[in-house]
Amino acid sequence: MKVELENVKPMEIEKRSFEIITEELGDTPLIPGTELIVKRCIHTSADFDYAKNLCFSEGAVEMAMDAIRNGACIVTDTQMAKAGINKRALARYGGEAYCFMSDEDVAALAKKNGTTRATASMDKAAEMDKKLIFAIGNAPTALVRLYELIENGKLSPELIIGVPVGFVNVVQSKELIMHADVPYIVAKGRKGGSNIAACIVNALLYMIDNRRD
Amino acid sequence: MKVELENVKPMEIEKRSFEIITEELGDTPLIPGTELIVKRCIHTSADFDYAKNLCFSEGAVEMAMDAIRNGACIVTDTQMAKAGINKRALARYGGEAYCFMSDEDVAALAKKNGTTRATASMDKAAEMDKKLIFAIGNAPTALVRLYELIENGKLSPELIIGVPVGFVNVVQSKELIMHADVPYIVAKGRKGGSNIAACIVNALLYMIDNRRD
Repeated sequence: MKVELENVKPMEIEKRSFEIITEELGDTPLIPGTELIVKRCIHTSADFDYAKNLCFSEGAVEMAMDAIRNGACIVTDTQMAKAGINKRALARYGGEAYCFMSDEDVAALAKKNGTTRATASMDKAAEMDKKLIFAIGNAPTALVRLYELIENGKLSPELIIGVPVGFVNVVQSKELIMHADVPYIVAKGRKGGSNIAACIVNALLYMIDNRRD
Repeated sequence: MKVELENVKPMEIEKRSFEIITEELGDTPLIPGTELIVKRCIHTSADFDYAKNLCFSEGAVEMAMDAIRNGACIVTDTQMAKAGINKRALARYGGEAYCFMSDEDVAALAKKNGTTRATASMDKAAEMDKKLIFAIGNAPTALVRLYELIENGKLSPELIIGVPVGFVNVVQSKELIMHADVPYIVAKGRKGGSNIAACIVNALLYMIDNRRD
């Protein structure tokens, strides 16, 4: 066997990974204040496309961090994204993570209206009386519904993380969100995923924890 | 707003997505019998690299499907991968999904031995008296430990899905598994993830469900 393992201690693996990412990014231009989010997405996917496709509305990162500090909750469109969020770090500020996709009332509402469960779960979230950040890594129909709810004045999220992945209406749903009156972090194009949605939430949490201002 | 949404019914979205993937793959050569796995990985990531980087040991797909039909259980290295597995489909054949990463005894063992929790959770899995498929989407140290357990005759998995993502020892850990005496599905290189690990398990489940032989 000629496989040679690099000798890196468990606690050092993430640090070393970020060093490699920073090195390979070289002088790729990143928007100041967004670097840690971009790098964490690359860390989660080994895909350097995220250095180019992540779009941030003006001040989105600061606003999101403030919202989390003030107890904002996270709503995801998959159990997988919810599982990936560091809920212990979130709880430090009073926030919780929710996913309504497996709820019976959501399934019933979707069936009744002929929508996806993702659409119905956004309607359910809109009824919550909480500061909300949406982390959408799967369903473009969730983003479309969020756009409609915002346009109709029924929802005013602190942030939308719009990173569904796929081939049908994914590109368009992200464009919609970038035209809505809402702070956003969006992965332009087809790429994204539940892992990316969770990782952007975690990046925001870790940025709050490490800040000394 | 000039965003135009494609009019696809909820139930048709996945079908349409697979049509687009098939179309864009064109005449890219895929190993017969592995097409649905490759396409589902692309569906989950919008990343066509998976058409090139997925490696299958001889007969791995058939053996894995047989193992699941005979009640094999899945062990993951993240809660996220476990969350992404279709556990209802798995239960039809008697299987369950496990992740030991948050277990207190695993944390204690890792601390005592100075290993990652992923390493310790593989040791815990090796004690189980069940047919096991490992779906590793995050920790190269889990793959390294699986290799050692197999080499030492302490473990004989039905299949290893080796798709950790990242920059430190990821490439090497996958090479190790491809040199071990075990059926494998591996994403060569840096790419992979919990989403890819779960999606390969689900692809196997859906292939069993749809087979008419």
